[in-house]
Amino acid sequence: MTLNVGVIGVGMIGQDHIRRLTTVLSGARVAAVTDVDLDRARSVAAGLPGGARVHESGRDLIGDNGVDAVMVTSWGETHEEYVLAGIAAGKQVFCEKPLATTRAACERIIDAETATGRRLVMVGFMRRYDAGYRAMKETIVNGEIGLPLVFHSAHRNPAVPRSVTTEGVIADTCVHDIDISRWLLDSEVAAAQMFRPRRSRRAPDGLHDPLLLILEMSDGVLVDIEAAVTVHYGYDIRGEVLGETGTVALAETGAVVVKSGGRQAGRVPDDWRERFVRAYDTELQQWVDAVGAGTSTGPSAWDGYAATVVTDAGIEALRSGQRVAVSLRDQPAIYREGGTTW
Amino acid sequence: MTLNVGVIGVGMIGQDHIRRLTTVLSGARVAAVTDVDLDRARSVAAGLPGGARVHESGRDLIGDNGVDAVMVTSWGETHEEYVLAGIAAGKQVFCEKPLATTRAACERIIDAETATGRRLVMVGFMRRYDAGYRAMKETIVNGEIGLPLVFHSAHRNPAVPRSVTTEGVIADTCVHDIDISRWLLDSEVAAAQMFRPRRSRRAPDGLHDPLLLILEMSDGVLVDIEAAVTVHYGYDIRGEVLGETGTVALAETGAVVVKSGGRQAGRVPDDWRERFVRAYDTELQQWVDAVGAGTSTGPSAWDGYAATVVTDAGIEALRSGQRVAVSLRDQPAIYREGGTTW
Amino acid sequence: MTLNVGVIGVGMIGQDHIRRLTTVLSGARVAAVTDVDLDRARSVAAGLPGGARVHESGRDLIGDNGVDAVMVTSWGETHEEYVLAGIAAGKQVFCEKPLATTRAACERIIDAETATGRRLVMVGFMRRYDAGYRAMKETIVNGEIGLPLVFHSAHRNPAVPRSVTTEGVIADTCVHDIDISRWLLDSEVAAAQMFRPRRSRRAPDGLHDPLLLILEMSDGVLVDIEAAVTVHYGYDIRGEVLGETGTVALAETGAVVVKSGGRQAGRVPDDWRERFVRAYDTELQQWVDAVGAGTSTGPSAWDGYAATVVTDAGIEALRSGQRVAVSLRDQPAIYREGGTTW
Amino acid sequence: MTLNVGVIGVGMIGQDHIRRLTTVLSGARVAAVTDVDLDRARSVAAGLPGGARVHESGRDLIGDNGVDAVMVTSWGETHEEYVLAGIAAGKQVFCEKPLATTRAACERIIDAETATGRRLVMVGFMRRYDAGYRAMKETIVNGEIGLPLVFHSAHRNPAVPRSVTTEGVIADTCVHDIDISRWLLDSEVAAAQMFRPRRSRRAPDGLHDPLLLILEMSDGVLVDIEAAVTVHYGYDIRGEVLGETGTVALAETGAVVVKSGGRQAGRVPDDWRERFVRAYDTELQQWVDAVGAGTSTGPSAWDGYAATVVTDAGIEALRSGQRVAVSLRDQPAIYREGGTTW
Repeated sequence: MTLNVGVIGVGMIGQDHIRRLTTVLSGARVAAVTDVDLDRARSVAAGLPGGARVHESGRDLIGDNGVDAVMVTSWGETHEEYVLAGIAAGKQVFCEKPLATTRAACERIIDAETATGRRLVMVGFMRRYDAGYRAMKETIVNGEIGLPLVFHSAHRNPAVPRSVTTEGVIADTCVHDIDISRWLLDSEVAAAQMFRPRRSRRAPDGLHDPLLLILEMSDGVLVDIEAAVTVHYGYDIRGEVLGETGTVALAETGAVVVKSGGRQAGRVPDDWRERFVRAYDTELQQWVDAVGAGTSTGPSAWDGYAATVVTDAGIEALRSGQRVAVSLRDQPAIYREGGTTW
Repeated sequence: MTLNVGVIGVGMIGQDHIRRLTTVLSGARVAAVTDVDLDRARSVAAGLPGGARVHESGRDLIGDNGVDAVMVTSWGETHEEYVLAGIAAGKQVFCEKPLATTRAACERIIDAETATGRRLVMVGFMRRYDAGYRAMKETIVNGEIGLPLVFHSAHRNPAVPRSVTTEGVIADTCVHDIDISRWLLDSEVAAAQMFRPRRSRRAPDGLHDPLLLILEMSDGVLVDIEAAVTVHYGYDIRGEVLGETGTVALAETGAVVVKSGGRQAGRVPDDWRERFVRAYDTELQQWVDAVGAGTSTGPSAWDGYAATVVTDAGIEALRSGQRVAVSLRDQPAIYREGGTTW
Repeated sequence: MTLNVGVIGVGMIGQDHIRRLTTVLSGARVAAVTDVDLDRARSVAAGLPGGARVHESGRDLIGDNGVDAVMVTSWGETHEEYVLAGIAAGKQVFCEKPLATTRAACERIIDAETATGRRLVMVGFMRRYDAGYRAMKETIVNGEIGLPLVFHSAHRNPAVPRSVTTEGVIADTCVHDIDISRWLLDSEVAAAQMFRPRRSRRAPDGLHDPLLLILEMSDGVLVDIEAAVTVHYGYDIRGEVLGETGTVALAETGAVVVKSGGRQAGRVPDDWRERFVRAYDTELQQWVDAVGAGTSTGPSAWDGYAATVVTDAGIEALRSGQRVAVSLRDQPAIYREGGTTW
Repeated sequence: MTLNVGVIGVGMIGQDHIRRLTTVLSGARVAAVTDVDLDRARSVAAGLPGGARVHESGRDLIGDNGVDAVMVTSWGETHEEYVLAGIAAGKQVFCEKPLATTRAACERIIDAETATGRRLVMVGFMRRYDAGYRAMKETIVNGEIGLPLVFHSAHRNPAVPRSVTTEGVIADTCVHDIDISRWLLDSEVAAAQMFRPRRSRRAPDGLHDPLLLILEMSDGVLVDIEAAVTVHYGYDIRGEVLGETGTVALAETGAVVVKSGGRQAGRVPDDWRERFVRAYDTELQQWVDAVGAGTSTGPSAWDGYAATVVTDAGIEALRSGQRVAVSLRDQPAIYREGGTTW
């Protein structure tokens, strides 16, 4: 009954998910791995209890009869190929974000999946599994604050590699805020506009940091997303939804309060691994459980598609300085019901 | 040594300030009052220990030799007349916001005051005296968070009279956020843009609530102001400045935490009087002290002028849906040094 | 209508109250001062606007016809003499804690005041005027947490002079927790027991720090008081009442939250002046108002007497290591009604 | 490599642990079960994927060659028998608290385990795995607050069955605070004293609620434990350690802050399952990992013994009203090193 998972791409996030499947979660094992760097793949396989087969390519791994389900944690540019191959093989695929790097690629995935008549793809938007965001969603759905009107989101990283660009922040950082906005508010994005605040002197060349992205949702809810990736002080994810009669906001996450030196202080997480460790656990356990039960769950290829369309709009808005309208194709029926995490 | 204050306008805020001068603060007394409703003026005067003279008009009150300084708490449309008259009489004037309702009127006041060669006017932007905003400013000035980059402000009222309009919210509500942005960031507003989020079903006809006002400061700092005046749950003033290496935010203000019924909860203030009671006390005491010492202090006519220009831009941005650039006249020397509260 | 106050003792607390009466509060002025150090008294008088008379003794000051009411802020050992003299002169007296240093002395004051048939003495237990304690009391009185069962109190000072003794901590530090327990719980203390936790290496010779004092109230409510006067990190006053269905606790008092260096932090006050600045203002304003109105208010000589009896019991409990029962004389009628701050 | 666990006792906590082993954790499965109610055991076994063997007795289950390790979650009175049988069979045993209900029984377990020369028993004090307590411990060990001096603990349940007695609260509720005190402070209990605060009207007959238990640790640190099991408002676990230069306290655990109806509020957990869900997960995963690796971990039989000796002292202190000294036998070497969770 153990789910045999094949992992394509064993970089940082791939190895972290392998650790989860192997030593944290229930019901799965890593049966096979591959990577653009085959030596790294062999090294990771050797470190697994009982080992794992090493394939020379993602396609070989997907074709392995001993692989029940596929995890795509390779470089974003390669996602389309592997997701499509997984769909073609009729295997469930967990794909880290982005689903694919272009709108057209995402649409090809949707077409392929839709043609099978059922959902095979889950995209790794782990925030949907965070206790804080889940409690926010529950508060909204329960009507405790009336209809949502405004969502304030802030996404702060202490630092980024010098290679990160402004467009990259939109595609890789804001994408999480975009997805969580769609999920929390149960609405699609209708337009995007981008503001460039004063640039931090800590931002490397080629990066305008911070950014302020405004989203207009199709039902009128307004979202403002502050993305700041050189804040130094920690990894800080903030969110507050203003409703008609109240608000709900993420609480601070420190486990203790320390009083010393004239301050009472709680911890700010170091990075996304610390902040979202439980969300990743829950996300993958739910995928394993669903696949094991022959069903599907979680953020879908549609969610991956919508996120890519909106990040594209954000990048266009950055360049033009103008409001950019967003339009999505018609949503296929397989994405309309079931399989959602809420 | 007691300062004899004459009060023009004895409505809600006027009576509250009279209470302060009479029973809370040191060094002042109310010597004379007037109001468009003379019966109300007589009634208020009769309630004062030792009474107070009642004048038939603001001009008469200003001309009273027993009045050392003037407080203007009448209807906004009348401010210009009384402030100009106070300046003409060479008396210090405390004027509740707005300084005047039009840019031109504010400029006439600036011209008149500048012609005297010294500051005579203080405008009632009480937030500058709030312990929270002062600690924010101190944190920024001390360099604890690096240069400020973004200021998130939220201004929430539980409810407003049915007569309040969207323009009125900009002029009367956002004006406080505009002034505190200028003061906290030590920078003028360069442009404004307005967004209309989903409208609350609690908003009366003629009012689009909430609003999101974006300000670009002259040094590039970006300000987003959420103004929501029908939130029902309480009077809630939020603010956070993102700096290059940290942030500073207003803390919650409840004096106790009560645990009951599955929740641990602190109080949200009922209204601005509860929230800013100490700020008003400090504001007026500093005015009394400064006037008693023959000096001036606090938000100046320039601050009142800048606030009116920016609220005008906000209203234009609301109507046009476009970014509206803001330009101010040259700042006269008397506003450049001294008399500031920081 | 201005109250002319004579101040006996112009040390740190005396000068702070003089500052309040002169520049913060409404309705009073300092008309006369004296001190065991007459030069200091003259210097303080010279610094007052309009000056103040300097008397050679407290008795002379009390006899001054231009002194309407007396403030006793001298050394504790001298309180009895001045309070009794004030009562004899029929003048209202504000006496800093302790009312007197022995039970017998407190009883002599009660006898003298009772013989006049009215309250003339207010004791400076300022915590009763703190917004936090007042909200706690209101929560209890409103029945929001059911009947109170346990009160946890912690009283922490960053440091104390090397001369402070363990007995001194009970008399001067715990006395505030004792009074606030009586006031919050509306009950007298029935017994006391003292525990000596591990001694901090920061405690000077002759001082066992921290201490844990257990009070049994007459209605069974249990109070535990942690007194720690060398905690270094700040001045921290904590309190929580457990009731039958909920709890109420003092909130943290920082005005802002600063995020930097991996922490989100609020300020802990430096000392009692910072923590209780508003409580002192309110306390003295209420005294000035009551005296001006010909009435009395606030903590009474009875409260001062009860506090001294309980601190004596605490000292006996410290020495014996045993539970020490507390008994008070019958309460005279003048202390039973009116004049309370609640 | 999957660990085959046999579970003795499939009541509430037993079933919860079975759920963990089966669907949450990695590396274990439930191979066999038994219960005093065999029908219940059969029903639970039938619900497991792949089923599980049902044994007629705990001894049969322990003797099952297909059982690698034993979990004892039966009624407390039966723990001694099964733990001893597990030791005799040379199998690792996870025993829910209490290790045994009498000091003598605990000593028999220690003797048996010591005779094997290695640790075979882990006792279910899950708080040691809670993120909050672990951060408290880390703060202390890192020297951030100097040496610990006082530990304030509060253990609050919303309600208890009518059958619960005062002694039962000490044995079953306070036992957790006793163990965590020993662990946090790295010290044994030297004496206990019990106070009975005013009794809540919500307490059922036969139960004095709340209680205040004072522990003196062997190094002088003082612990006060408020146990209140009818507080109605929620399940609330509080703890603060005062050190020489600072304090560390458990933070509130709510994931969001909701503002509505004049309050800003966080959730208080409903019960121990909600509050400690992650601690139980971590606890059992660490046991599974250690057993799988041929080692031992976690709270030992010594910890179980010490806890029972102290709860006995607490019960004696309750009855006598006196301070009761605590003495432990000499600690066998196998408990002195290794296998600890810190």
